[in-house]
Amino acid sequence: MSTALLRGGGLLLRKSMIRWTLRALATSSCDSGDSQILRSPPLASVDLPDVWTSNSDHDETSTSISNLTNPQTAVVIDGKAIAAEIISRIASEGSRMKKSIGQVPGLAVILVNQRRECQIYARNKIKACEEAGFWSKITELPEHCSENEVIKALSTFNENPSVHGVIVQLPLPQHLDEGKILSKVCVEKDVDGLHPLNIGNLAMRGREPLFISCTPKGCIELLLRSGVEIRGKKAVVIGRSNIVGLPTYLLLQRHHATVSVLHAFTENPEKITSEADIVISAAGVPNLVRGSWLKSGSIVIDVGTCPVEDPDSEHGYRLMGDVCYDEAVRVVSAITPVPGGVGPMTVAMLLLNTLESAKRAYEFF
Amino acid sequence: MSTALLRGGGLLLRKSMIRWTLRALATSSCDSGDSQILRSPPLASVDLPDVWTSNSDHDETSTSISNLTNPQTAVVIDGKAIAAEIISRIASEGSRMKKSIGQVPGLAVILVNQRRECQIYARNKIKACEEAGFWSKITELPEHCSENEVIKALSTFNENPSVHGVIVQLPLPQHLDEGKILSKVCVEKDVDGLHPLNIGNLAMRGREPLFISCTPKGCIELLLRSGVEIRGKKAVVIGRSNIVGLPTYLLLQRHHATVSVLHAFTENPEKITSEADIVISAAGVPNLVRGSWLKSGSIVIDVGTCPVEDPDSEHGYRLMGDVCYDEAVRVVSAITPVPGGVGPMTVAMLLLNTLESAKRAYEFF
Repeated sequence: MSTALLRGGGLLLRKSMIRWTLRALATSSCDSGDSQILRSPPLASVDLPDVWTSNSDHDETSTSISNLTNPQTAVVIDGKAIAAEIISRIASEGSRMKKSIGQVPGLAVILVNQRRECQIYARNKIKACEEAGFWSKITELPEHCSENEVIKALSTFNENPSVHGVIVQLPLPQHLDEGKILSKVCVEKDVDGLHPLNIGNLAMRGREPLFISCTPKGCIELLLRSGVEIRGKKAVVIGRSNIVGLPTYLLLQRHHATVSVLHAFTENPEKITSEADIVISAAGVPNLVRGSWLKSGSIVIDVGTCPVEDPDSEHGYRLMGDVCYDEAVRVVSAITPVPGGVGPMTVAMLLLNTLESAKRAYEFF
Repeated sequence: MSTALLRGGGLLLRKSMIRWTLRALATSSCDSGDSQILRSPPLASVDLPDVWTSNSDHDETSTSISNLTNPQTAVVIDGKAIAAEIISRIASEGSRMKKSIGQVPGLAVILVNQRRECQIYARNKIKACEEAGFWSKITELPEHCSENEVIKALSTFNENPSVHGVIVQLPLPQHLDEGKILSKVCVEKDVDGLHPLNIGNLAMRGREPLFISCTPKGCIELLLRSGVEIRGKKAVVIGRSNIVGLPTYLLLQRHHATVSVLHAFTENPEKITSEADIVISAAGVPNLVRGSWLKSGSIVIDVGTCPVEDPDSEHGYRLMGDVCYDEAVRVVSAITPVPGGVGPMTVAMLLLNTLESAKRAYEFF
């Protein structure tokens, strides 16, 4: 039973039309170390009580995004530039740590899958660490290694006090049990935010996970930096993967959006999407979301980065998002490009999670 | 990145309209001990891959509930009768355990809040244990006790091998930190399913929590026993409490519904609700959901049980649901009454979770 429910003792039925109104009893505080770098506040500070009251009239409040009103000239949300600014501040913090206590944040990456894009993703993370002045190490295991070999590599990093973040590059080869392996990442070093304890604490109001998954955290930061008010908005998350769709939903709801999660079993996804103020698409299907799916003036965050064959491109392929960009840009208020939108933010949030983990470990604030 | 996303290498953009179709590659298996009593299958068995394919036409599949078609004669879902049948089977299992190994399932309840409804809820659980032949114990603490006193009581039950389920009657008095206290319940005895690790494993596809929260588990069982196909349906959950709204959303999504979660910050909740095939309301606001909010032929599960003053009633009050029953019954295909709907199912699921916990503890299957 919700608190509201149990507090309802003595509440009498009113015959009038019932309307829900908000009493904003709490406000966001932004005084943590995290929010010095991010706009995103600590989650517990955004929790608001659900106060439901009865009223006889209905206020047709506009749901359009106030700061971005002209659908003819969509703002391109420059994830690359925002990520660069964040990484620069992370590097400064790392440098301050080094000067003060002689330590730097450390990230360990385990790479099993030898597919090209996995190798690229893993190496980009290591490269970003180097640029930020972090210590990092990548352990590459043969594609056909056993679960025990992966867990052994994990344990070594879990026990190493110079390592503050441990990640396993996903997806793993099919013979390995992803859930079992990810649960072995020490929860205090789970900078990908994929341990069920971190997901559980992200889901539950009043709680704070030690880490929030990097891509969803980056998406919210892009929205906040674009001046988007999330509270009360209709949001659609397309895709429900453990790594993106699920935590993105949970995070949007912690910010008081009304969220629908669409997946491959959803009927009429275009209709549901066309009613949303905020669309975050993480289906991994190129051009799934057409211009006709989108509401005029909405905000689109495109998480899709699908490699698509392109003989004209230098590497023989290029990355494509879920959203048909050329169509969307004529309809929406703001949109992230692919590449250069969410991707760089994911890496920035990984560095930030690693920095925060190191700060906690050394009690350096 | 989702697996689908990363499998997309080499996928070429198609100019045609994109449609999502389902390939049901997996089917539900019902061979666990749990499903001998429930229709609800183990969650891992209902996980299905999201296969997104491109197609040029769109199939306007009806989203009406197939088994319940006449909105003029709503089926009243008799939770009391269904719960009684389930409890009878639980009692048989408990009896079989006693005969085989000389042990019975044991439930411990900690009651701090001395409000009337909390006392009633807690004692109903103890009474149900007695009827099912379970061992049970209630520890009542004074309203102004300290957090440490509650945690000490919890620890005693956590360590007692005759106790297989430990619950703290909610809500707690305001001076106590609910999150901190609930996290101290041993995860293997968390029969209310409120430990963040159980919530995390409920949220994540491919995982199975040790326990699913009782009310959401009861709601799904009512749907399944009413012949409602959840997969692909539009569902609305009203309310987002950690104890009902959140796990209900997570469970509906594991069953492949397209779910929207509404809360006090939602604009136009009536419009969103009126598009849903399945409505599960857990706001705790009497008569919040009017007939005009509901789609013809939809299914309504009313979790609200708000005590409302009623001088004509024996105890001076009666329980009211979130849904305006008299209006809804003329619109929907099926509805749970209040009382006699979800309430008895919550108690039945608590007994079932306790039975399952005892079976695991004694390796008795």
